[in-house]
Amino acid sequence: MTATTYSISLIGFGGVNRALAELIVTRNDVWQRELGFRLMIVGVSDLTLGSIIAPGGIDPRVLTRSRFEPGGFAALSGGSADPRSLIVVRNAPADIVVEATFTDAQTGEPAISHCRAAVAAGRHVVTNNKGPVALAARALTEQANRLGLRFECEGSVMSGTPVLRLAREALAGSQITGFKGVLNGTSNFILGRMEAGLNFAAALHEAQAAGYAEADPTADVEGHDVRLKVVILANELLGADLLPAQVECSGITAITPAHLAEAAAQGRRWKLIGSAMRQADGQVTAQVQAKCLPLSHPLAGISGAVNAVTFATDLLGDVTISGPGAGRVETAYAILSDIIALHRDGVAAKCCEAAE
Amino acid sequence: MTATTYSISLIGFGGVNRALAELIVTRNDVWQRELGFRLMIVGVSDLTLGSIIAPGGIDPRVLTRSRFEPGGFAALSGGSADPRSLIVVRNAPADIVVEATFTDAQTGEPAISHCRAAVAAGRHVVTNNKGPVALAARALTEQANRLGLRFECEGSVMSGTPVLRLAREALAGSQITGFKGVLNGTSNFILGRMEAGLNFAAALHEAQAAGYAEADPTADVEGHDVRLKVVILANELLGADLLPAQVECSGITAITPAHLAEAAAQGRRWKLIGSAMRQADGQVTAQVQAKCLPLSHPLAGISGAVNAVTFATDLLGDVTISGPGAGRVETAYAILSDIIALHRDGVAAKCCEAAE
Repeated sequence: MTATTYSISLIGFGGVNRALAELIVTRNDVWQRELGFRLMIVGVSDLTLGSIIAPGGIDPRVLTRSRFEPGGFAALSGGSADPRSLIVVRNAPADIVVEATFTDAQTGEPAISHCRAAVAAGRHVVTNNKGPVALAARALTEQANRLGLRFECEGSVMSGTPVLRLAREALAGSQITGFKGVLNGTSNFILGRMEAGLNFAAALHEAQAAGYAEADPTADVEGHDVRLKVVILANELLGADLLPAQVECSGITAITPAHLAEAAAQGRRWKLIGSAMRQADGQVTAQVQAKCLPLSHPLAGISGAVNAVTFATDLLGDVTISGPGAGRVETAYAILSDIIALHRDGVAAKCCEAAE
Repeated sequence: MTATTYSISLIGFGGVNRALAELIVTRNDVWQRELGFRLMIVGVSDLTLGSIIAPGGIDPRVLTRSRFEPGGFAALSGGSADPRSLIVVRNAPADIVVEATFTDAQTGEPAISHCRAAVAAGRHVVTNNKGPVALAARALTEQANRLGLRFECEGSVMSGTPVLRLAREALAGSQITGFKGVLNGTSNFILGRMEAGLNFAAALHEAQAAGYAEADPTADVEGHDVRLKVVILANELLGADLLPAQVECSGITAITPAHLAEAAAQGRRWKLIGSAMRQADGQVTAQVQAKCLPLSHPLAGISGAVNAVTFATDLLGDVTISGPGAGRVETAYAILSDIIALHRDGVAAKCCEAAE
């Protein structure tokens, strides 16, 4: 039996790309049988661990079973203690570059530079990184498409929950006129705990203890994380050309237990909602704001760290998808789902045929 | 500019195919521009109105603007007062047969015969008819695939809400191990009105007045309609080979206002749930039963006539989609979405190129 093998480079070896490597260890044979392809890692770059370039493939078990010290990739064949990220992007002979580095949300760097270099080197790009998608998706997509390549980013919103693919593919032919979403699990978890009686500080503390909230929770509770996702969805699905600074944004820090109790008494519930809508003049307006929804609203029942988006469509009315908003395996699945799309569309064409 | 034109036959000219014809009137130019194809109706058959065979195409405005008397198609070019459904299926030169007849849910007829004849004549089949999909999808799909044809049925569950396409395509690579759904809008509407204080009879009456419930509501309130949808989802998505009679089934008629009040006091809510799960031994078990769900369950918040399905998956955990469960335009969109899939996959190959 022959199988298509796609060679990939992993740029950033944190939770997501490590989870992807673990999936390759356990599932490559299943993918070959059920999806028609295998994945082979030919390059890895990590700011802490160093880098590897191995045109013949790196055993993913070596990557996932070892606990590497800083610079530890130097001990592997083709390895170096130096991250050499742009060199890996350019020189490791990958069909697909998986960009999952720790990236500054203000500048989108270093991810944008990695994506640009990957496309320039003739490689497809798959990323879960919100920065490059929110700030540069149009330019990166155009650059890729000119070269017959693709820039895929399902994991940039709601991890592996297929929100972009649902809207673009499964809802094709029914125009999306706007959306509303619960797009930040941390703030949704905090609001839920405040409904249960905690004050904001106690609820935040619990979210941090549960691993939902960062030590600095600003991006979550002030709406900045939601704003990036709103920009991504508005640009990708409504054809907008928004930058984060153009989206009005407030968070949940002004919500008190009294607000929540008053809402409950009226059969309502506060949610941090990111939304965008195409106006009659064709312009797309977007905002991030806490809203007091009736319990009958499809987003009112979204509990805990779950995320959801309701699309307004012309032929179907409202269609809502909910699922995990984060998680390393869930986000690694998003990367996989993008690779499945490249395979299905027959565009990941530099592949080699491996006899089995 | 050139566009692919798919010729279609409409078998059954009730709400759904009439809505499809209306969409063709208003949207053919948009589809040509945005989706890359137009639709041309070359055959129509209706038990009451008669039939038309018109290889050069039927003006959809004539079909949708007129109020036809029984047998009224006889007045049109290529028309007859006789439904001649199998003759239309066989002789009208369609690429795609759209099967939307009034069909017996026990036997799946006449839809199954129409689908078989369509495939035997070399035509793709698209249907929203639960009967042939629940009873004969595997045989019809195999018959079609042997001839390089397709049998598509997105509209058989939740109208145009893309539940099959989400599961098969957007969730590809994350194995679905089971599902739970709120799959009957009438019974869900009735439960909601009973929560608001009505007794069953009054809530049913209101559902009938609102057009949700049939004069004979048995199929809705006894779970039979949900059972067909559970069989379809279990067979299509879990690889089961179930028949409706193999699925345990009860409805909502035993639920009293006291049950609902007791549930509400416990922070719970009754829902009629259709579900199936793959067991450890590979067998798929399925059932239809009213369940008392905690409010945090993704299906607890599904209100009114909305339908929803929660898929259990191995890599993503639970993913839920909700949207309209019925409606003529919504179901016509399901037909369109199946045709979009045929077009995208390049299989609707008998198409002609029409210069514009």
